[in-house]
Amino acid sequence: MADPWLTTLITPTPEEGFALAVKISRMGVKTTQPDVDVLHKLRPDYAENADSLTAASQVVAINFQTVAAANNYWR
Amino acid sequence: MADPWLTTLITPTPEEGFALAVKISRMGVKTTQPDVDVLHKLRPDYAENADSLTAASQVVAINFQTVAAANNYWR
Amino acid sequence: MADPWLTTLITPTPEEGFALAVKISRMGVKTTQPDVDVLHKLRPDYAENADSLTAASQVVAINFQTVAAANNYWR
Amino acid sequence: MADPWLTTLITPTPEEGFALAVKISRMGVKTTQPDVDVLHKLRPDYAENADSLTAASQVVAINFQTVAAANNYWR
Amino acid sequence: MADPWLTTLITPTPEEGFALAVKISRMGVKTTQPDVDVLHKLRPDYAENADSLTAASQVVAINFQTVAAANNYWR
Amino acid sequence: MADPWLTTLITPTPEEGFALAVKISRMGVKTTQPDVDVLHKLRPDYAENADSLTAASQVVAINFQTVAAANNYWR
Repeated sequence: MADPWLTTLITPTPEEGFALAVKISRMGVKTTQPDVDVLHKLRPDYAENADSLTAASQVVAINFQTVAAANNYWR
Repeated sequence: MADPWLTTLITPTPEEGFALAVKISRMGVKTTQPDVDVLHKLRPDYAENADSLTAASQVVAINFQTVAAANNYWR
Repeated sequence: MADPWLTTLITPTPEEGFALAVKISRMGVKTTQPDVDVLHKLRPDYAENADSLTAASQVVAINFQTVAAANNYWR
Repeated sequence: MADPWLTTLITPTPEEGFALAVKISRMGVKTTQPDVDVLHKLRPDYAENADSLTAASQVVAINFQTVAAANNYWR
Repeated sequence: MADPWLTTLITPTPEEGFALAVKISRMGVKTTQPDVDVLHKLRPDYAENADSLTAASQVVAINFQTVAAANNYWR
Repeated sequence: MADPWLTTLITPTPEEGFALAVKISRMGVKTTQPDVDVLHKLRPDYAENADSLTAASQVVAINFQTVAAANNYWR
């Protein structure tokens, strides 16, 4: 994590804000499990499980709240 | 994801805002599992499971908070 | 869903706001599973399961946050 | 539910606000399962299960956010 | 619960605010299960289970949001 | 916990704010299970489990909401 990955919460559009929320959610996972090989092995466990996908979508939703507020909802 | 799918959080009515929250929730799933065939196969797993439906409704509720705030609650 | 079901988040009282939060939560379920017969069959699965009831109450709580904010907390 | 049970979110103290959050959380359960006998039977299922108690505490926490905001945090 | 346990959400520091969030989270559990002996017996169930600890940390995080907002984030 | 670990929610950058959210999330776990040896033993249980990692990421997301608001979203 030498390179900065989160220099701002401001994005030009809601869609880029959503993409940032996805990135932050993934970083939340990587912080707990930094081993990319392990993460790769786990992928089928959740990417083919309906409840796991819903849970992933929920984390994105929470981070999207933060990014949207930061951008004053792109009003 | 070439076409933009989220250009604004502003909607004319709360009901359209709710529909947008549903769309954002689904996009949270598609970002993790972009293979539409897999998603189709998983559908019975959650659409006929009470707890999975509640979990899906929760993600929509979180995204609806964001959309509602963006629209100043359509006051 | 031809008839509008969510024209406003404003309610005269907190209690009616809570009822609206319940309605929004249920609509979150119906959006994923529109087949009323399936929903009926699933009812015992969650209505007689303590953890499912807590989960349902949580979704209502999240939607109640939205409705309460919309009504400026009926202050 | 003939008698009103939620006429205001305003409470004199944080502690009474917390009690109100507990009440709202329980009403979220009762709305889904209004049969008090069923609820009684389910009680040991969650009251003696650590994860169920944590889940119940989470719903209270969400409702307490709402009540606390309504009261401007009793500042 | 004769003695008041929550007279204010205001704390001098973020760290004391976090401690208050922990206290509120625990009170959410005690409200559902007031029997201290039962709570003691349940302790190993969650204190030695990774997912239960994460769930407990989540409730604290939600309550910390409330306490932090009450204190205007100790800015 | 003799040394203070949370003296401010203010951070210079979003990335340091995210790191603080991770720290707060971990402290939420340590408060419930202070025994570092137990925590170490539990690590494989969640660090190699997809759903546990998602749950951990969710707690970080909630705490990041708090830290981001405290910093006025580093606007």
